[in-house]
Amino acid sequence: TSLAPRLPPSSSTLFEAKKKKNLTFEAIAQQVGRDEVAVAALFYGQAMASPEDIQKLSQMLDIPVDQLESELSGYPDRGRCLDMPPKDPTVYRLFEIVQNYGYAYKAVLNEKFGDGIMSAISFSTKIEKETDEKGDWAKITLRGKWLPYTRF
Amino acid sequence: TSLAPRLPPSSSTLFEAKKKKNLTFEAIAQQVGRDEVAVAALFYGQAMASPEDIQKLSQMLDIPVDQLESELSGYPDRGRCLDMPPKDPTVYRLFEIVQNYGYAYKAVLNEKFGDGIMSAISFSTKIEKETDEKGDWAKITLRGKWLPYTRF
Amino acid sequence: TSLAPRLPPSSSTLFEAKKKKNLTFEAIAQQVGRDEVAVAALFYGQAMASPEDIQKLSQMLDIPVDQLESELSGYPDRGRCLDMPPKDPTVYRLFEIVQNYGYAYKAVLNEKFGDGIMSAISFSTKIEKETDEKGDWAKITLRGKWLPYTRF
Amino acid sequence: TSLAPRLPPSSSTLFEAKKKKNLTFEAIAQQVGRDEVAVAALFYGQAMASPEDIQKLSQMLDIPVDQLESELSGYPDRGRCLDMPPKDPTVYRLFEIVQNYGYAYKAVLNEKFGDGIMSAISFSTKIEKETDEKGDWAKITLRGKWLPYTRF
Amino acid sequence: TSLAPRLPPSSSTLFEAKKKKNLTFEAIAQQVGRDEVAVAALFYGQAMASPEDIQKLSQMLDIPVDQLESELSGYPDRGRCLDMPPKDPTVYRLFEIVQNYGYAYKAVLNEKFGDGIMSAISFSTKIEKETDEKGDWAKITLRGKWLPYTRF
Amino acid sequence: TSLAPRLPPSSSTLFEAKKKKNLTFEAIAQQVGRDEVAVAALFYGQAMASPEDIQKLSQMLDIPVDQLESELSGYPDRGRCLDMPPKDPTVYRLFEIVQNYGYAYKAVLNEKFGDGIMSAISFSTKIEKETDEKGDWAKITLRGKWLPYTRF
Amino acid sequence: TSLAPRLPPSSSTLFEAKKKKNLTFEAIAQQVGRDEVAVAALFYGQAMASPEDIQKLSQMLDIPVDQLESELSGYPDRGRCLDMPPKDPTVYRLFEIVQNYGYAYKAVLNEKFGDGIMSAISFSTKIEKETDEKGDWAKITLRGKWLPYTRF
Amino acid sequence: TSLAPRLPPSSSTLFEAKKKKNLTFEAIAQQVGRDEVAVAALFYGQAMASPEDIQKLSQMLDIPVDQLESELSGYPDRGRCLDMPPKDPTVYRLFEIVQNYGYAYKAVLNEKFGDGIMSAISFSTKIEKETDEKGDWAKITLRGKWLPYTRF
Amino acid sequence: TSLAPRLPPSSSTLFEAKKKKNLTFEAIAQQVGRDEVAVAALFYGQAMASPEDIQKLSQMLDIPVDQLESELSGYPDRGRCLDMPPKDPTVYRLFEIVQNYGYAYKAVLNEKFGDGIMSAISFSTKIEKETDEKGDWAKITLRGKWLPYTRF
Amino acid sequence: TSLAPRLPPSSSTLFEAKKKKNLTFEAIAQQVGRDEVAVAALFYGQAMASPEDIQKLSQMLDIPVDQLESELSGYPDRGRCLDMPPKDPTVYRLFEIVQNYGYAYKAVLNEKFGDGIMSAISFSTKIEKETDEKGDWAKITLRGKWLPYTRF
Repeated sequence: TSLAPRLPPSSSTLFEAKKKKNLTFEAIAQQVGRDEVAVAALFYGQAMASPEDIQKLSQMLDIPVDQLESELSGYPDRGRCLDMPPKDPTVYRLFEIVQNYGYAYKAVLNEKFGDGIMSAISFSTKIEKETDEKGDWAKITLRGKWLPYTRF
Repeated sequence: TSLAPRLPPSSSTLFEAKKKKNLTFEAIAQQVGRDEVAVAALFYGQAMASPEDIQKLSQMLDIPVDQLESELSGYPDRGRCLDMPPKDPTVYRLFEIVQNYGYAYKAVLNEKFGDGIMSAISFSTKIEKETDEKGDWAKITLRGKWLPYTRF
Repeated sequence: TSLAPRLPPSSSTLFEAKKKKNLTFEAIAQQVGRDEVAVAALFYGQAMASPEDIQKLSQMLDIPVDQLESELSGYPDRGRCLDMPPKDPTVYRLFEIVQNYGYAYKAVLNEKFGDGIMSAISFSTKIEKETDEKGDWAKITLRGKWLPYTRF
Repeated sequence: TSLAPRLPPSSSTLFEAKKKKNLTFEAIAQQVGRDEVAVAALFYGQAMASPEDIQKLSQMLDIPVDQLESELSGYPDRGRCLDMPPKDPTVYRLFEIVQNYGYAYKAVLNEKFGDGIMSAISFSTKIEKETDEKGDWAKITLRGKWLPYTRF
Repeated sequence: TSLAPRLPPSSSTLFEAKKKKNLTFEAIAQQVGRDEVAVAALFYGQAMASPEDIQKLSQMLDIPVDQLESELSGYPDRGRCLDMPPKDPTVYRLFEIVQNYGYAYKAVLNEKFGDGIMSAISFSTKIEKETDEKGDWAKITLRGKWLPYTRF
Repeated sequence: TSLAPRLPPSSSTLFEAKKKKNLTFEAIAQQVGRDEVAVAALFYGQAMASPEDIQKLSQMLDIPVDQLESELSGYPDRGRCLDMPPKDPTVYRLFEIVQNYGYAYKAVLNEKFGDGIMSAISFSTKIEKETDEKGDWAKITLRGKWLPYTRF
Repeated sequence: TSLAPRLPPSSSTLFEAKKKKNLTFEAIAQQVGRDEVAVAALFYGQAMASPEDIQKLSQMLDIPVDQLESELSGYPDRGRCLDMPPKDPTVYRLFEIVQNYGYAYKAVLNEKFGDGIMSAISFSTKIEKETDEKGDWAKITLRGKWLPYTRF
Repeated sequence: TSLAPRLPPSSSTLFEAKKKKNLTFEAIAQQVGRDEVAVAALFYGQAMASPEDIQKLSQMLDIPVDQLESELSGYPDRGRCLDMPPKDPTVYRLFEIVQNYGYAYKAVLNEKFGDGIMSAISFSTKIEKETDEKGDWAKITLRGKWLPYTRF
Repeated sequence: TSLAPRLPPSSSTLFEAKKKKNLTFEAIAQQVGRDEVAVAALFYGQAMASPEDIQKLSQMLDIPVDQLESELSGYPDRGRCLDMPPKDPTVYRLFEIVQNYGYAYKAVLNEKFGDGIMSAISFSTKIEKETDEKGDWAKITLRGKWLPYTRF
Repeated sequence: TSLAPRLPPSSSTLFEAKKKKNLTFEAIAQQVGRDEVAVAALFYGQAMASPEDIQKLSQMLDIPVDQLESELSGYPDRGRCLDMPPKDPTVYRLFEIVQNYGYAYKAVLNEKFGDGIMSAISFSTKIEKETDEKGDWAKITLRGKWLPYTRF
């Protein structure tokens, strides 16, 4: 089904204002002092906005601060905007990478770090664009705290 | 169900030899001239071995080259070793990152590159370990060719 | 569930105008300079419209260019209009072809091209009608760039 | 799960003989007088072998004709070798094409032919390789009889 | 979920008019010159109406012909009104018959006709009522063209 | 997955004997005094054999009566040989008929019989072959007792 | 998802009137001359109302008979109000009983009655409350006609 | 898939002995002092055997007590022998009763007992056969302790 | 899909009032005399409110008692607000604990208590916050009555 | 399906030795210096054994240390022994607690700790038995580090 009904009301407020102001995530991110992916996640209701974020978004996007505070209050109910497996090819490719390399990642992580996980919470991520003679390359970095299993 | 029945016969040959020889993926990767994740993927039947890879693996792991050639012949039937959603927490965290940030990634990728996908085929990946005062951090890099949709 | 709620607002705008103008995809495709399947995909929100496409569609279909620009802005969220397995028999037959011949296609593709995939992005497709004494035949052509797996 | 347990016993007989004889599907197809995809489908238990096919396969592949007759007797139980959605990227791309363009295909087919389906039974398919300055292209053709819905 | 949202707008138009006119499918079928099951399928958006059908339905059911033409225009998106497995016991029993006797049907069909399918497109069906001392019996007849697999 | 592991041991006994004796379901059915579909269902473990059936099958198929009695003892665990939706095209077409016409059947059955179901237990079915100038037609008849809902 | 959208319009009419009138299913059942479970099923759109039921419900619940006749006309589309497995613990326990004892029930039923089923159509059910020193006990009785499989 | 692989080793021991001794569940139940359904559940690995049960079963069925003790040791892993929804019609009818009447049961239970559940653990069940002029009737009784939700 | 449509109308009434009054679950719980988790469950429609709860909530939250009585009347339809597996990481971690330790819990529970279950109905739960030099720790306690299986 | 095929070879080694030695998890846990649940998890292949654990288990259970080292080498592939939703009632009740109280837990956790998760990795758990006049109570404690989402 369409994406819209899965999103919180803040999403349409933010996306419409961004479109009207003709702003990129890059520009917003720079202003807010967060990464582009974090800002996009915030737009999709997948990340939390601090009071300062709300202030800055309100200013840049010309949205009354009261409305934004009210719509962005509460803790995000994460994961709601995507059904797995993803149908959109751009998102599917990321899913496919986990499906194909999942156990290879686990094997190398265990070898390098021991028994544990790479946190997806104490975590940051970013996208970079690289260009060479063969064309453009997207580089996505995932960086998370290593959490060893507690022995009990 | 258990992982074992999903793997091709080459997997147990390779894993057993690696264990007997007490070798790390890092050491094998250096010898073979490939990345650790690629080598682990090869062990799980998720990547293809070149004739040179087979030669080197045969030597390092003391596996008859004929056996390895026979077991690694044919094109990998990728994706077979992982059922989604992953149950193992280490692999699940990667799945969760796609689930939570999937549309944010798409939005930023589209903004930076236009309409298309980051290839998971013309693609490489690696894992790095970083340590600071807060502890260890895993850094996973995904790097893929940007493919714009063909207009037709 | 019904198709309508899965489609973006642009879909009803376009389909209604097409019906009112009594135009075929063939006619629209000729005017826009794209293939019929691409135009139909665009109507279902599965392909992106260039600024020129929007201009031409606006003219042919008598839709204000502003409305069309607004409704077709943003990158398509592909795959949203079809739940798999397809229930409609016309679409199911295509699914069945993949289900029945999937591994045969892979085997022949690997034999002819090596380890890789036929791109569905750097890709075009068309439908032709052929008639002989036995009746009508539909011929669907899929043509995609061959992408070899990167060795890493 | 692994592909092997889904295949009929004839599959391992045929694949092993093909490997030992070092024959391509192309060569076998030429000899048998069928298309490469059909021959590969036959290897995967997805197509039926005629008595002549069995004779020729027996000769080319040095398999006793009795064994082949016995293993290939009975009607194929089609569709058994692939779980949908496909996990292997090469097969997934074909699935994705149906998912993304399914309704576009239906719309154009209906426009060109009326209410009905393209048969997947009264059907043939082939793969061609094309090369230009941009690289290699795979071209897959699907050709099926158009079946109009009976009015009753 | 309820049936209503899965049906096209024509369904409520037709069902409401049928109820108001207090007509049976039998009576409508006789007038339209089609089978009762076909007429019911048309009401559920599962079969296509010819221009003559629309004329006759418009007259019998007192629906403006323009409205009916508009609502019934376009090709049916079949299969949308039923989620499988069916929950309603009347429909489930038919599903159960396929589940229990599916391979028995295939075995007998193959024995009688060879390798192929009974078409569900070049197809008609009807329901008859029979009464004997034991009570009432429903007899459903499925009649489809036999389509042999094309050798290619 | 393959059909074989879903079948009771009696299935391979019966199918192998049938093949060796080169008998059709038609011939067996005539001898046993049951319908071909019932006999095929019995082969697939989907119908129960009476002591007389066992006697006759033992004779015709040259299977020791003790073995057959032992393998066919116990009540069938029906439905086990088919996963829904069916993947084999021959069986899928029957599933599709239920999917497409399910509610139309229910509507006509209710109109003709009231609130109830057509029994799939107090039920018989048969397949007939008809040939006309257009080719061969398969006719499947389903006949079940009408069971009205008890008022309580 | 919430229960409400799965229910027919009659459900809210009936439940609201019951609440306003402060009536129990027991009281309504006594008046209508049906069992409490049947009346509750009728409220959820899972059982059919006879003309007399409608008369009595209309009187007891102060609902215009026309409205009730219109909303309860048509045959129930059973099973629509519950997704399986049930999430509500009260309903889940019943599901669990079938899951845990399903084959034990079948084994004992077959032993006592032969090859067949207990009808869920020619069927009635009731709930009784029993109290002893250990507390309250719910007793649910399911009573259905035994239907032997037809030999054909 | 077939039932056998889901059952613990004790199941085949018990069923084979029962068949050899030609004993009914009724006879075994009388001897063991438990209900027939409980005994059948024990055979399917769905109920626990007390030391006395093991003694009596060993005697009646001529199974060495050591073997039985060993095979029946440990706590049952309940629910393993049935996949939901059930495919066998005899078991499906019980599932259908829960699907159709689930919310009606809940509504009447809540009305009679308040907020809580009927326990499926502090629970017993039995099957009775009743015969009248219309034929045979199966009567299944479910009796469970009522557990009110704790207020906390 | 978003959480909102799964919740009963009482949820938005309660959450909005809580936000307006700027009250914590802790404060409400203290006033109502229930645990914080129970109060939050009540807000999500997962627990029942006693008449006294309604009185106190009405006062604290300034909601007309009639409205609250009406919205909270009826027995909760539990489980409706969460689809499993949970997508939100905070909830997923609890699911993961059950997935990873489920059989270990069962083994230890059986060893300590015998054959039975820990009730989720005669049950209470609470969350505590603990802080030490390593940071904050959440402690969740689940406490349920042990119910042994009835021997029958 | 049965639990056994999901477990690693170490599981049967450990469980059989435990049974032969007639040891409880409590006794083993005391000796090994870990919690009972952790030890049970280790038996099911859900937790990692340290070299000291292996030494102690080898001694207590009379298993050659080489065999245990070999079977317990490698990092656990967690989650493999349980399919969700759990079918066994003892495990299901824990699942139900998450299903019913999941969002209530999240709401209270967020209120007490802010935006983050309770770790299931930096985590311990235990089971206690409490007895009062009403009977036995199981108390399960879950204790995990609170991880706030990183702002990026």
